[in-house]
Amino acid sequence: MIVHNKFDWRLVLRFSLKNILFSLSITAIAVILHFVLGFGSLQMPIAIIATLGTALAIMLGFRNGSAYERWWEARKIWGGIVNDSRTFTRQVLSMVNINQETSSDSTKLKTVQEDLIFTHISFVYALKFQLRENTKEEDWEDKVNKDLNPETRELITSKSNKATQLLIQQGLKLKKCRDEGFIDEIRQINIDNTLTRLSDCQGKSERIKHTPFPKAYEIFNRILLNLFILFLPFSLLPIFSEIKAWWLVFPVSVMVSWVFYGIHQMGILMAKPFENFRWDVPLDAICNTIEIDLHQAMESNKAPEKLQPNEDGILM
Amino acid sequence: MIVHNKFDWRLVLRFSLKNILFSLSITAIAVILHFVLGFGSLQMPIAIIATLGTALAIMLGFRNGSAYERWWEARKIWGGIVNDSRTFTRQVLSMVNINQETSSDSTKLKTVQEDLIFTHISFVYALKFQLRENTKEEDWEDKVNKDLNPETRELITSKSNKATQLLIQQGLKLKKCRDEGFIDEIRQINIDNTLTRLSDCQGKSERIKHTPFPKAYEIFNRILLNLFILFLPFSLLPIFSEIKAWWLVFPVSVMVSWVFYGIHQMGILMAKPFENFRWDVPLDAICNTIEIDLHQAMESNKAPEKLQPNEDGILM
Amino acid sequence: MIVHNKFDWRLVLRFSLKNILFSLSITAIAVILHFVLGFGSLQMPIAIIATLGTALAIMLGFRNGSAYERWWEARKIWGGIVNDSRTFTRQVLSMVNINQETSSDSTKLKTVQEDLIFTHISFVYALKFQLRENTKEEDWEDKVNKDLNPETRELITSKSNKATQLLIQQGLKLKKCRDEGFIDEIRQINIDNTLTRLSDCQGKSERIKHTPFPKAYEIFNRILLNLFILFLPFSLLPIFSEIKAWWLVFPVSVMVSWVFYGIHQMGILMAKPFENFRWDVPLDAICNTIEIDLHQAMESNKAPEKLQPNEDGILM
Amino acid sequence: MIVHNKFDWRLVLRFSLKNILFSLSITAIAVILHFVLGFGSLQMPIAIIATLGTALAIMLGFRNGSAYERWWEARKIWGGIVNDSRTFTRQVLSMVNINQETSSDSTKLKTVQEDLIFTHISFVYALKFQLRENTKEEDWEDKVNKDLNPETRELITSKSNKATQLLIQQGLKLKKCRDEGFIDEIRQINIDNTLTRLSDCQGKSERIKHTPFPKAYEIFNRILLNLFILFLPFSLLPIFSEIKAWWLVFPVSVMVSWVFYGIHQMGILMAKPFENFRWDVPLDAICNTIEIDLHQAMESNKAPEKLQPNEDGILM
Amino acid sequence: MIVHNKFDWRLVLRFSLKNILFSLSITAIAVILHFVLGFGSLQMPIAIIATLGTALAIMLGFRNGSAYERWWEARKIWGGIVNDSRTFTRQVLSMVNINQETSSDSTKLKTVQEDLIFTHISFVYALKFQLRENTKEEDWEDKVNKDLNPETRELITSKSNKATQLLIQQGLKLKKCRDEGFIDEIRQINIDNTLTRLSDCQGKSERIKHTPFPKAYEIFNRILLNLFILFLPFSLLPIFSEIKAWWLVFPVSVMVSWVFYGIHQMGILMAKPFENFRWDVPLDAICNTIEIDLHQAMESNKAPEKLQPNEDGILM
Repeated sequence: MIVHNKFDWRLVLRFSLKNILFSLSITAIAVILHFVLGFGSLQMPIAIIATLGTALAIMLGFRNGSAYERWWEARKIWGGIVNDSRTFTRQVLSMVNINQETSSDSTKLKTVQEDLIFTHISFVYALKFQLRENTKEEDWEDKVNKDLNPETRELITSKSNKATQLLIQQGLKLKKCRDEGFIDEIRQINIDNTLTRLSDCQGKSERIKHTPFPKAYEIFNRILLNLFILFLPFSLLPIFSEIKAWWLVFPVSVMVSWVFYGIHQMGILMAKPFENFRWDVPLDAICNTIEIDLHQAMESNKAPEKLQPNEDGILM
Repeated sequence: MIVHNKFDWRLVLRFSLKNILFSLSITAIAVILHFVLGFGSLQMPIAIIATLGTALAIMLGFRNGSAYERWWEARKIWGGIVNDSRTFTRQVLSMVNINQETSSDSTKLKTVQEDLIFTHISFVYALKFQLRENTKEEDWEDKVNKDLNPETRELITSKSNKATQLLIQQGLKLKKCRDEGFIDEIRQINIDNTLTRLSDCQGKSERIKHTPFPKAYEIFNRILLNLFILFLPFSLLPIFSEIKAWWLVFPVSVMVSWVFYGIHQMGILMAKPFENFRWDVPLDAICNTIEIDLHQAMESNKAPEKLQPNEDGILM
Repeated sequence: MIVHNKFDWRLVLRFSLKNILFSLSITAIAVILHFVLGFGSLQMPIAIIATLGTALAIMLGFRNGSAYERWWEARKIWGGIVNDSRTFTRQVLSMVNINQETSSDSTKLKTVQEDLIFTHISFVYALKFQLRENTKEEDWEDKVNKDLNPETRELITSKSNKATQLLIQQGLKLKKCRDEGFIDEIRQINIDNTLTRLSDCQGKSERIKHTPFPKAYEIFNRILLNLFILFLPFSLLPIFSEIKAWWLVFPVSVMVSWVFYGIHQMGILMAKPFENFRWDVPLDAICNTIEIDLHQAMESNKAPEKLQPNEDGILM
Repeated sequence: MIVHNKFDWRLVLRFSLKNILFSLSITAIAVILHFVLGFGSLQMPIAIIATLGTALAIMLGFRNGSAYERWWEARKIWGGIVNDSRTFTRQVLSMVNINQETSSDSTKLKTVQEDLIFTHISFVYALKFQLRENTKEEDWEDKVNKDLNPETRELITSKSNKATQLLIQQGLKLKKCRDEGFIDEIRQINIDNTLTRLSDCQGKSERIKHTPFPKAYEIFNRILLNLFILFLPFSLLPIFSEIKAWWLVFPVSVMVSWVFYGIHQMGILMAKPFENFRWDVPLDAICNTIEIDLHQAMESNKAPEKLQPNEDGILM
Repeated sequence: MIVHNKFDWRLVLRFSLKNILFSLSITAIAVILHFVLGFGSLQMPIAIIATLGTALAIMLGFRNGSAYERWWEARKIWGGIVNDSRTFTRQVLSMVNINQETSSDSTKLKTVQEDLIFTHISFVYALKFQLRENTKEEDWEDKVNKDLNPETRELITSKSNKATQLLIQQGLKLKKCRDEGFIDEIRQINIDNTLTRLSDCQGKSERIKHTPFPKAYEIFNRILLNLFILFLPFSLLPIFSEIKAWWLVFPVSVMVSWVFYGIHQMGILMAKPFENFRWDVPLDAICNTIEIDLHQAMESNKAPEKLQPNEDGILM
């Protein structure tokens, strides 16, 4: 996510170089046909350009609206993970409890509560790594495995979707709490409902990650855009040439083409919120927030530092 | 669902051949009227074309927006089935339980849990086959019936909506668990709520499948599109003919007509997400994901292989 | 709901005859003014037409988007009734139960379960008849009253909103089950929540039925449309007359007017989904589906036949 | 809410008189500048009008879309109050109960149930009066205070938000039921959840009532509209004057200005659904429906008459 | 939030001065090139302006639609906090209770209830101060700390997110109520669900606060706007100059540019609802409403005065 309003020209150029070259070539061809090969009267009616431009703007408007919705939905899902992480912690602290009749002592209780909350932090990081396709062993070791108890760690080792299996383990941990008298069935169910919501958030993130925006939309927008870029210089050249300023066709064609291309490209990137790209939903920052809040709630002093945007104003 | 960005020209041609021929014929008629029959001054004002083109783009923009919403809703519903499948499994494993006072032994418990989870996998496949209208007996045998216990299998045989009846059987299985002391009423209700959400997902899929996008929308968009295609060459020909490049009317009319037609056609197909078409919501892949996750949660080693996109980049 | 893609010209003509005549008259007046009365130079600037046409298309686009939302919401509500009917049945079959300590025998249980489910079917049909304003006594007798037990039938006789009172009776029936030991309070509440959702669906249907789409929208769209139809021939005639093809103003004006009128009219009809019109949400088919599913779940053999679209491809 | 499709010209004129005079004056100034002061060649390019008109249509389209959403949301909220009123009544009748062990007699039970339901009707009317800013003492006396028991009446007297305090009293009444053995805690919570939903509906109505649609939107739409009205006659006059029909500038300018103004004004009014205006959500009719349904459910014969639209086709 | 419809010209000027100067400079350059440097025939085709203007209007329409959604979502979230504050209070008053068997006396009960409700008011103000980035110690002392009991105050002192930790403390207070017999587990869970919804509202506010509207949208809208402003005078000047009214290019360019700029700028500000700006969601007024309602529900006489809009018609 871009936090500061810096506009990085080099980045923009790198992303749109191909388009600018394409637009320049078309314009050059138009100029050559006009002056060199003598097709001087060749002309595209400007109303066609207006119609195509309007159609293109409408299509891009709808597409970018949907792309923004996807991005914002992804952000909402991770906002939901923040909320349910706090709720899960509040519920563990206030509902997993010493039942005076059966339990042994409060040290054991603290261990049980911390195991549940640490496993939750591992779940959040595991989900982040899965979405970002990060398979670096040191990251997994540092953030996911470190605070898991050995048993849980063992159990998820060979599983393909580790986040899913961690949530299932949380369910079994609560069952064990029930068996050992730390919780009654009615509160078990209440915390289980929080696990259900977390499971929903996981599934929704995976849906957005694994279901690309319909390719057909991209393709037809692309074709419409290219048709517009193709016709534009043929339509402008006769007009500029008449007022003896034919060279104006270059900056005007390229600028107009470029701004439509940029709007098109922006929508494509916005529709992919979990790709390690600078417009990503800031999973690093969100996981960091969760970790700080949960450590402080446990009165633990091992909370990490708050993550800051990097020097480019990017928060990942 | 198309995963890779390959653009298949043959497919596109097959889908739009009729439209291209229609557009070519209209243009040819315009040319014949103009040059052969001497209606040289016949002309459609270009502003009419601009108005119709803009109106068409607006209508298609709204329609395709709604079509995308349908498709995305279908995808969300099946994402919900993934989530609730995981939740159902977590709840069965952590809440269907040996109640020390009444039950016999843990082997029986494992049988009961596996029966519930296997029946769930059968439900998911039955729903997929019903939506895709797949009635091949070997598919049903292989995916739905194989792991059902004989009693359940018998019961659903003659029913018209097998997925619905499987969910009702799940309710009765939970009641039996309650009678045999594997679960208490409060947890029975909690798992029953998961069945309710699954029933909702089923009903929502069926709603999208059986309720076509209003035909009247299709028809009026079609008429508007045809009017645009019909008027276009009559509007362009005089202009191109004046600059002595009348032949340009062919490529320009056809290309412009084709791109609008393509946008129209795309919306029609996008609004039908369960039709065995390449833009379908990828039910095969989703069912496969559910099967893998559930087998791994049961610590079973019979999980199937992960499904990959085929050579055309299609995941069904 | 229209299932097949047949396009019925007579129907379309009947609906748009008034508009076609209006458009023809305006065009005739324009021609008379032009040629007969000698206002040959009278002309409406085509840019005004383009502006009005674009504004009209935008307004119709938004209005029809909202109309489709209404129609789709109505369809979703009745989809919800399907889902909650199945859920209600599953819950009645698996939760209304012989409590070994207090109840007498399983015949009584079956009677109680069937009474609840048959009353539910009556509720669904009563709601349909109320929405469609069907007051034919034989229909009510055949579908609503036939399977009600005499006591319930008596109670709802004099009530103005029979569907509402049937749901309240269901609540009282569950209370009686509780008093007689067929259900405990926690499951009573669970089934009561299903009744609450059904009550919501009923209220939502009534909201759509009794709240017309804001009249002011219709009126201003209508005025904008008429202004467009009024100005159109005055704008086209000078152009066509210049190219000596003045008669073209008739087909072009009428066709363009007609397509905008059709889009306008379609939105008006789409916004009323419960009017016994051919674009209605298919309540007959939905009620039929519910009846079949519920009978099969009760292992009853009195399930009706599946409803098919009629010869015009309409499913009501 | 307007029920019938009557179009009241006087009303429309009263609302748009200022705009029509503004538009006439601008046109008159244009004519004077043109013919009297000799600025005959003064002309606004028509493309500027087309651009401003399109921009205006787009802005109004979005704004009116949002205004309709607000209105429809308000209608949905009050639909929710209808549904939850029925649900509350069903729950009171079937769950507030004689617990054989502790209670005295069924007369007391009936009093308790009626007190809860009558207090609910008072709540609904209190909310209506607060939203419509009705402070007439006789209305409050007639609809809110009449059926309240004296204790409750006393308690809410000095409170600023009476509807809120009535819901809190309902909570305390349920607590008293619990203390006196008419209800157990699990059903108390179930009915309390219905109170929570009613509290949500109240808060949502107040949000719409007290949060005007952003003023900045109104202002910029207004400026764009005025710019359009200002430029329009200057753009049309030269064209009409050239064809010797300069007087046409009056009807055309005024009609086109008026239709855009009407669309603008309609959106402003639609965004305020609780203002005693004829486009209001019909709170009178909704409250009336609730009162009838609840009286009939209690088998009381004091249900009021059904409210009918007035002679102008308005249902308030 | 702006309550009254006053239009403050100075404010508008201060916000748009830079844009007006930019637009004036471009126009001046166009005039200089035209008359002084003799590029008299230099001309931008007006169709390009129409296309860019339409595209700009579409992009701004979509962007402002989304910005309004954000603002309205923020308002909805705080409406939800109002509702859940009332619900929390109702539940505390009617469900935290003297359990006759274990508790001591009703004075203690009142202390416990007031501690829960006062802590809730502190939570609401803490959230407001965090969103508005208000770190003034006297404000925190006056509104958050004053009514907290010393223990709770101590516990949240060193925490980074005080609102989160206050909700977690509420959970622990409820647990203490349970331990001391003021509440049973089933009602504890019911109130805990209200805390969960409040936690969701907090998280949603933080999401909107900390996730700026995608910068890329701002940037491309800005570029498109500047391109439009840049081309506009070059397109108008030849036309005005031909009718010998070249000076008209100044007011027309500047007015048209300014209105598009204003619409653009409005969207940027609307997308940030928690910035101490005059278009903010009125958190002061909402917190004030909550405080009044809660004090009146507790029958306390320390309710603050109702907040009024200031002399500029602004309610913060």
